[in-house]
Amino acid sequence: MEADLIARYFTALGAARADVRLGIGDDAALLAVPPGSELVLTTDVLVEGVHFDATSPAQSLGHRALAVNLSDIAAMGAAPAWALLSLNLPGVDEQWLQQFAAGFGALAREEGVALVGGNLSRGPLSITVQLAGTVPVGQALLRTGANVGDLIYVSGTPGDAAQGLKAGAGSELRARFEYPAPRVKLGLALGGIASACIDLSDGLYADLGRLALASDCGAAVAIGQLPVSAGLQRALGSEAWRGVLAGGEDYELLFTVPPQRKAALEQLARTLDFPLTSIGQMQNGAGIVLSRDGNVMHFTHPGFDHFSAS
Amino acid sequence: MEADLIARYFTALGAARADVRLGIGDDAALLAVPPGSELVLTTDVLVEGVHFDATSPAQSLGHRALAVNLSDIAAMGAAPAWALLSLNLPGVDEQWLQQFAAGFGALAREEGVALVGGNLSRGPLSITVQLAGTVPVGQALLRTGANVGDLIYVSGTPGDAAQGLKAGAGSELRARFEYPAPRVKLGLALGGIASACIDLSDGLYADLGRLALASDCGAAVAIGQLPVSAGLQRALGSEAWRGVLAGGEDYELLFTVPPQRKAALEQLARTLDFPLTSIGQMQNGAGIVLSRDGNVMHFTHPGFDHFSAS
Repeated sequence: MEADLIARYFTALGAARADVRLGIGDDAALLAVPPGSELVLTTDVLVEGVHFDATSPAQSLGHRALAVNLSDIAAMGAAPAWALLSLNLPGVDEQWLQQFAAGFGALAREEGVALVGGNLSRGPLSITVQLAGTVPVGQALLRTGANVGDLIYVSGTPGDAAQGLKAGAGSELRARFEYPAPRVKLGLALGGIASACIDLSDGLYADLGRLALASDCGAAVAIGQLPVSAGLQRALGSEAWRGVLAGGEDYELLFTVPPQRKAALEQLARTLDFPLTSIGQMQNGAGIVLSRDGNVMHFTHPGFDHFSAS
Repeated sequence: MEADLIARYFTALGAARADVRLGIGDDAALLAVPPGSELVLTTDVLVEGVHFDATSPAQSLGHRALAVNLSDIAAMGAAPAWALLSLNLPGVDEQWLQQFAAGFGALAREEGVALVGGNLSRGPLSITVQLAGTVPVGQALLRTGANVGDLIYVSGTPGDAAQGLKAGAGSELRARFEYPAPRVKLGLALGGIASACIDLSDGLYADLGRLALASDCGAAVAIGQLPVSAGLQRALGSEAWRGVLAGGEDYELLFTVPPQRKAALEQLARTLDFPLTSIGQMQNGAGIVLSRDGNVMHFTHPGFDHFSAS
């Protein structure tokens, strides 16, 4: 039955790739890495009751489980290639499996990812995806590469996903939570332009803090420059900027660009169907300084921690 | 706290490898694949209440979670290299984490595996490991390569682990279940000798059936040739052969050798500190035929299926 389920829903799910020498069915998958490339590996997990609840549509879970990993690969400036999927399921629900596979498969085909292995086990519902990609040697985008004076950019409109989650099913921003668009093509295009990059999973403020710390810089952010979607503006009004900074689950890219590459970045931005917005600049020191109309603003957001004392 | 726990228990766990360009701490790990190699990827999961219970020692779980993946890599004739670890934990138990890391780390160092990423999440206890390895292009051992006339070999003494699990804590075979020895060096040495290979996770009978099916052959097994450990003989007496066939969780290698490579295999066997035993031969047809003293014997074992109707 386990083998049946795998054959029915997961074999040949995703893109067909010539570099898959052996996919699902042996002890392990066998893959051809392009010469001159480094391998990029990441994993992320969705657990029921923590990352989603029992009302979450299975199609959205299939999409998100892959999207959160694609976003990590995108943040490295790498091309995604091969996924492994481990599903712990409390029982067999064929409709759920079909919809989960539809969500996972559609995004995998769109991004050229082959599902090459995995696991079905009985257990409390939990979804673990591992994603492997490749990047030309020495060209990966790291968190550590930002320098004082680099411009800070963010893609899309962060804060929408968290608001969509909060507002519940049927709200206008809900799809931004359920079907985040990982910025794979952007990550690839940022090679040679960006000096550092991170994806937004815990919110702009928390993740910019991580990039700044890793790069041993401070960051100055102009609140008036933060991109605010029309939906978030309607939902939060004059406090929308706090939603942009707090966010979470956005899976947008936050990256830094040396001033001399600003023109190249702006040229790239014109080719995209989502905004790239300059929100500030890396500076000496540590931490994030927020300002509006010349005044320093305060913002406290602990980020999301599975094991915080609360 | 999540970052603290990762820093305390998992950063720098396992072997130091020069090919790890970037380990834990960025959006993804960055790894150098040796030229002329193919990438081998596998994943396996341990779920509380399914693969272990609340009395299982954390050190054993750390060992087993890595060992089951090492066994898959071994069965491909590949060299293990980089692991990702995703732990879903109901809460923070520092003593548990320390012992888990000790079990995982000791085996990782022994087998030269670096832990390069992963995830800590709150949730019902579940352990997912992904392991990547490499094998020279075209030299992987597959399940599909056996031919009629090839000799069938098995490493070690299968059946011990299942008996150790059944007999409970303190029994003489318990360590065979809690600390299985993945046959990594054997898998590497079988390149150029074996025609097909599989690791024993669901029992010799079930897994030989898979190898035979994948290779489009039948298999004849001589019950009198099955390796029986002294402990299993004491536990099961004249029915010990059934324990060898049913087994499960052995993580031994089952492989086929063309007759003309028998001498090379026997030479290899003399260098090992565990037995390699010839138990039969691949033949025309399908399925497994068991015989003892010229009589066909019957054995029914469904194997382990998480989603069987029962």
